[in-house]
Amino acid sequence: MPRVSPERLNSRRREILAGARACFARHGYEGATVRRLEEQIGLSRGAIFHHFRDKDSLFLAVAEDDAVQMADTVATHGLVQVMRDLADESNSPEITGWLGSQLEVSRRLRTDEEFARAWEDRKHAIAQATRDRLTRQREAGALRTDLPIEVLAQFLELAYEGLITRLAMGADTADLTPVLDMVESAVRRTG
Amino acid sequence: MPRVSPERLNSRRREILAGARACFARHGYEGATVRRLEEQIGLSRGAIFHHFRDKDSLFLAVAEDDAVQMADTVATHGLVQVMRDLADESNSPEITGWLGSQLEVSRRLRTDEEFARAWEDRKHAIAQATRDRLTRQREAGALRTDLPIEVLAQFLELAYEGLITRLAMGADTADLTPVLDMVESAVRRTG
Repeated sequence: MPRVSPERLNSRRREILAGARACFARHGYEGATVRRLEEQIGLSRGAIFHHFRDKDSLFLAVAEDDAVQMADTVATHGLVQVMRDLADESNSPEITGWLGSQLEVSRRLRTDEEFARAWEDRKHAIAQATRDRLTRQREAGALRTDLPIEVLAQFLELAYEGLITRLAMGADTADLTPVLDMVESAVRRTG
Repeated sequence: MPRVSPERLNSRRREILAGARACFARHGYEGATVRRLEEQIGLSRGAIFHHFRDKDSLFLAVAEDDAVQMADTVATHGLVQVMRDLADESNSPEITGWLGSQLEVSRRLRTDEEFARAWEDRKHAIAQATRDRLTRQREAGALRTDLPIEVLAQFLELAYEGLITRLAMGADTADLTPVLDMVESAVRRTG
């Protein structure tokens, strides 16, 4: 068995995840057969499942990667910016793919208690990133001061969930900029 | 065949709809078998399907009735009040049942083009009720005047869809009052 450096392993893992993400995006979870995963990733099933136990593990790795990236974006740019990116690029393959994995995660949260427990940490990381950023924004004097951070965070999350639902229904979100401006200004200091 | 007055027919129809609504609420669309519909409604399948062609027609009649009622509530009390009622009574059988039929309608909108076309009028009636009420509120001087009614309406709809998603995920919505206050004040005249 050839020795592979940890760096190499990591880059191979990322390569597999990128291909798998594209394949799940294009065909959905059910439609992403092992054959299609092989074609999209450009590796044999042996090579793929050396790194990920099975298709389900591969899907979860994609979804976890998405969740980590989202927490990062929220921490840096805020939840409203995530919403703007989603609304502007709702027809891009990246967003379609991301949305597909979100919906599959939602489905599992409803139907699979074990998954729902395991996913708690991911949800918590994103929720915490939202609250941390709001706290920093308030310290910088950018936010309204008459409501607790928790209320502002839940308000943003409500709008975010509405947007995801709208995207999932295939609605046109191109004209949503003034609506997202309203969402943003509702948490900001006025005047 | 006995003659039945139109009033009697109408009251019988409403009786069937009430029982069917409770049955769909309790068992879901799939689980509401004809047997269970008979038990809940208290009439034989012959009597039920004299008024409604089949189970699907019965479900659609319940969903249409819900849509008409929602348009009425929106016209009289506004979309924010609909949201407050949903959040406050999210565990009541009425709301659970209503939500169940909403989710079944959403599923069909995604998967059934013919249904989606037929449902356009219902969606339009609710959307129009929202805009008409906002227009009246603006005329009464209660709303902010710097944004078009369309933007205010879409903002409320985004929050509404977020709430429905949250309810569908079984989330606790008891603490949402201050968040819904934020939603309402975002469309109102400030100061």
